[in-house]
Amino acid sequence: MASSGVTGSPCGACKFLRRKCAAECVFAPYFCAEDGASQFAAIHKVFGASNAAKLLQQVAPGDRSEAAATVTYEAQARMRDPVYGCVAHIFALQQQVVALQAQVAQARTHLVAAGHGHPLLYQQQAAWQVAETSTTQSSSGCYSAHRSDDGSSMHAPAEMYCFGEQEEGSY
Amino acid sequence: MASSGVTGSPCGACKFLRRKCAAECVFAPYFCAEDGASQFAAIHKVFGASNAAKLLQQVAPGDRSEAAATVTYEAQARMRDPVYGCVAHIFALQQQVVALQAQVAQARTHLVAAGHGHPLLYQQQAAWQVAETSTTQSSSGCYSAHRSDDGSSMHAPAEMYCFGEQEEGSY
Repeated sequence: MASSGVTGSPCGACKFLRRKCAAECVFAPYFCAEDGASQFAAIHKVFGASNAAKLLQQVAPGDRSEAAATVTYEAQARMRDPVYGCVAHIFALQQQVVALQAQVAQARTHLVAAGHGHPLLYQQQAAWQVAETSTTQSSSGCYSAHRSDDGSSMHAPAEMYCFGEQEEGSY
Repeated sequence: MASSGVTGSPCGACKFLRRKCAAECVFAPYFCAEDGASQFAAIHKVFGASNAAKLLQQVAPGDRSEAAATVTYEAQARMRDPVYGCVAHIFALQQQVVALQAQVAQARTHLVAAGHGHPLLYQQQAAWQVAETSTTQSSSGCYSAHRSDDGSSMHAPAEMYCFGEQEEGSY
């Protein structure tokens, strides 16, 4: 646990905010006195200290380190890329998935042509059938950012934003 | 463009904030009077209206629709999953990439066994060599969230957080 004003130097968040670090400081366990200040600077600018504190307080104590890490990551990504933030990484990964799926499909075609009847082909096909199910499930939920019901509200280009099934129907 | 208080009903952001929608409202073009209010509610809770306005104002007008869309997506994802937010989607995509890479590697092994000398094999191998280069590039930048220099500052488990090369060295 990072030190607080009670036991020593303030945590990174309180150091950045130039305030006394209380014993119950919600940031102290996750933002150390050294690197924590620069990490918290990004959080402060993107989310605001108050919103970040509320976010940490609303999750279970056991989940707060993960929440602090993901909020820090999002904030730093948004600082680097104000337009896309960490969504740029999602787009890059989606492109990688599409490219790999094409490679798998092509390999399947070539295996049929090259090794029809080969015992290994049947093993590979069985593996593909299993993998295809999970792959199809995890790549659902794509939608166009260009709203068809009110074209004036979102001026994003009509390319597909695929944010996964958990984000289905976000817009 | 969504209507503002000058021309008609307030935009979704101003409707949510219960304020007059000025002609120069930075939110009006991207948050319509209908669905925009619920979208902005998530942004208001996660980022804060002031931080979101600053973010839009710091990007070029031509990029603001994309910025509004990605900020809305991040906010809605964080509302659904306060611990991981949209980083959950990044993790899911990374797992999908790893699974697909394993399939491609397995297919390569099987193609060598089943079709050694087959003309299609050489085409496939050439395609893999090209694809492998880009795949390797885009999957770099992995790091462990469990800090080795100060284990106390981030209590995330020692699993790999792979946020892509643009995020390299975030922590």
